[in-house]
Amino acid sequence: MRFPKPYTLKEIASIIKTEYIGDDDFPVYGTNEIHRVKKGEIVFVDHPKYYDKALQSPATIILINKKVECPKGKALLISDDPFRDFNTINTHFRSYHPQKETIAEDVEVGEGTVIQPGVYIGKQVKIGKNCIIFPNVTIHDYTEIGNNVIIQSGTVIGGDAFYYKNRGEFHDRLKSVGNVKIEDNVEIGSNCTIDRGVTDTTVIGEGSKLDNLIQIGHDTIIGKKCLIASQVGIAGCCNIEDEVTMWGQVGVASSLTIGKKAVIWAQSGVSKNLEGGKAYFGYPANEAKKMLKELAVLKRLTK
Amino acid sequence: MRFPKPYTLKEIASIIKTEYIGDDDFPVYGTNEIHRVKKGEIVFVDHPKYYDKALQSPATIILINKKVECPKGKALLISDDPFRDFNTINTHFRSYHPQKETIAEDVEVGEGTVIQPGVYIGKQVKIGKNCIIFPNVTIHDYTEIGNNVIIQSGTVIGGDAFYYKNRGEFHDRLKSVGNVKIEDNVEIGSNCTIDRGVTDTTVIGEGSKLDNLIQIGHDTIIGKKCLIASQVGIAGCCNIEDEVTMWGQVGVASSLTIGKKAVIWAQSGVSKNLEGGKAYFGYPANEAKKMLKELAVLKRLTK
Amino acid sequence: MRFPKPYTLKEIASIIKTEYIGDDDFPVYGTNEIHRVKKGEIVFVDHPKYYDKALQSPATIILINKKVECPKGKALLISDDPFRDFNTINTHFRSYHPQKETIAEDVEVGEGTVIQPGVYIGKQVKIGKNCIIFPNVTIHDYTEIGNNVIIQSGTVIGGDAFYYKNRGEFHDRLKSVGNVKIEDNVEIGSNCTIDRGVTDTTVIGEGSKLDNLIQIGHDTIIGKKCLIASQVGIAGCCNIEDEVTMWGQVGVASSLTIGKKAVIWAQSGVSKNLEGGKAYFGYPANEAKKMLKELAVLKRLTK
Repeated sequence: MRFPKPYTLKEIASIIKTEYIGDDDFPVYGTNEIHRVKKGEIVFVDHPKYYDKALQSPATIILINKKVECPKGKALLISDDPFRDFNTINTHFRSYHPQKETIAEDVEVGEGTVIQPGVYIGKQVKIGKNCIIFPNVTIHDYTEIGNNVIIQSGTVIGGDAFYYKNRGEFHDRLKSVGNVKIEDNVEIGSNCTIDRGVTDTTVIGEGSKLDNLIQIGHDTIIGKKCLIASQVGIAGCCNIEDEVTMWGQVGVASSLTIGKKAVIWAQSGVSKNLEGGKAYFGYPANEAKKMLKELAVLKRLTK
Repeated sequence: MRFPKPYTLKEIASIIKTEYIGDDDFPVYGTNEIHRVKKGEIVFVDHPKYYDKALQSPATIILINKKVECPKGKALLISDDPFRDFNTINTHFRSYHPQKETIAEDVEVGEGTVIQPGVYIGKQVKIGKNCIIFPNVTIHDYTEIGNNVIIQSGTVIGGDAFYYKNRGEFHDRLKSVGNVKIEDNVEIGSNCTIDRGVTDTTVIGEGSKLDNLIQIGHDTIIGKKCLIASQVGIAGCCNIEDEVTMWGQVGVASSLTIGKKAVIWAQSGVSKNLEGGKAYFGYPANEAKKMLKELAVLKRLTK
Repeated sequence: MRFPKPYTLKEIASIIKTEYIGDDDFPVYGTNEIHRVKKGEIVFVDHPKYYDKALQSPATIILINKKVECPKGKALLISDDPFRDFNTINTHFRSYHPQKETIAEDVEVGEGTVIQPGVYIGKQVKIGKNCIIFPNVTIHDYTEIGNNVIIQSGTVIGGDAFYYKNRGEFHDRLKSVGNVKIEDNVEIGSNCTIDRGVTDTTVIGEGSKLDNLIQIGHDTIIGKKCLIASQVGIAGCCNIEDEVTMWGQVGVASSLTIGKKAVIWAQSGVSKNLEGGKAYFGYPANEAKKMLKELAVLKRLTK
């Protein structure tokens, strides 16, 4: 999440009342989670196993629960509970305010866009030109929608991420302060759920078409001109490159990359990165060529 | 889609400004897609691979991108872009008009039918007697619902089909101008999506019962007294015959026929036509008897 | 379903105009289905195959279609159609009354709870403190919701069960008169469907977290601190014990028990009871250790 304006390391440390290593005026532009973090942003890490990954990530401010050596050109925020303090910073800048209106007052809607009855639109949402938002759609705060977008009935854009830390006694929610961006010419079917990013943006790329009852997890990026059939589920933090096709009921585990123009056959379960330009199927999914050969051998073996 | 009255070939040709082969007054009653087309209707074809199929289909008017020999008793509309012109004809007769009312003024509702809060009902919808339409249901234009029908909350009846032509630069939507028909005594669970036909009617047959979160694709015909469990997905243009049972999370690919009284076990993926009266399972689905034998052999082999 | 006050056997028999075996004033506290029935409750049975199960269940009143010997300390209601008469008793005490208000007048809502636009809440619903009910959620009659509960948009709580008797000519619905209980600190994603019990209570246990598009069947009990990922489907009458984790698109057949701390990997199909404390996957699901070994052997065999 980008802060409304740049802050200093000292200012951020004072919000969470914590020690820091770095210049008082080290610039901080926002927060982000490890898969999406960029220069000028805070990332958090609370398990030694991931210290190196966080310290070596593009993040320039690391919110960490150990006084480690500060990498050159970076800064540290030392916290006894980085997860809690990450939530504190995020909700300091973007907290949830319930809204009584069905359509928030500050929504921007382009010319020619139709919004049908029963639609809820949250705060600071932007919708482009010539869109159709069908009845009973829910669009949460900060969503950005391009031109010529169609969203069919019952779909929920920008629900909170399914992202928890196991505290032993309970599961602690990472507060979602990211958003969803739906680019031009995207069409989304009925009763889909497209979660907002936890800190970043879930993206549905230009010209992609989604059927009904599809789940898109937080911070996942769907490329341009993808075709995604009904009941597909894509977990959080995935990169689905341009022109990927997924047939019905495919599942994709979190943080995976599926290469450009890959085709995933129906009901496949994708558990690793897949190269572009090929067809895949199976559970777990593998190259269709290999899988068909294996199936043929198995048929012979069982005879 | 049936036109409001019969038209002549000449009149239709003037709508799309195209050449034609056949008598000026050759009668045209409507349009339809290749799986459902009947005598008196226009079908479109734009790929040489499918010319013969279209020319030999029950369609009597073929909208085609080549001057071929006209079959006896039929007529041709010659177009440089049959897909575009098919959309033009369809939207000439049935275009999308956004509606501000939650329930359109021309809706017909039978005696004893209850419509709960948050329900949206589009234009020219007919609902029979003693139905219950639960809260937050969406029923789109032209839907026909029989008597004693129950539709539970959040379900969307008559969403647009997921049907695109790949134009290289973008995916071009075939405009949906068909509808949904739900026969007497049907019961549908919560958050289902039942798409309208692209030009014809998606049917849920008399007495069939659907659980929650089910996807039924465009132009699919579900027979009478079928039982369909939660999270099943059936693609477009399928024929599911009477008294078929499908357990949870089954997927059925497009344009398939499943015979009367077939039983499909949970999570199966159906990729070919299945004979009636038998049990099936697996991915891809096969006769349960054979599959169980194969599984037993595999167990032995892997020991 | 618990009756509003205790009734006598004679009074209940008069509602369904049937013969009975037992004392006139034998106490009857309610009805229940076979998996959940307790002392003082009526269970019904109409197939000889299940007579013994019903007679030996904790039920103390058995609604049955044969004059059998009455077990000691119990009573019988003799009916030519126990299914019909079970429905008659249930709807005598709890019949469906359509509601015109978006939020019923008798709803109890705790301090600090936010109810967003487009939400429907049925009769006699109780919601605790500091909950957030997001837009376009549907909460049906008799639902009980604890404190600090979050329910995201489009989710339907308390839809009717998918439970039918095949009458040959048609499928006869068992009327749902149970409810849903959502305990403290539960969080439920968008567009989920959680069915009410047919006569008992569907429970989501303290601190459990559910992602989007999840189906929970009637009378199923989800334990405490479970994590259930997107598009999981759990059929009716299951016992999911505490701290179970299920990854995306898992399916669980009806009436199964999954033991404490079991982990079910994505897309698995659970068809039998599973012991706690282990990981499982596959279709049908089995211990992950065994399955991985089998997969490795198969890979070798097919080479």
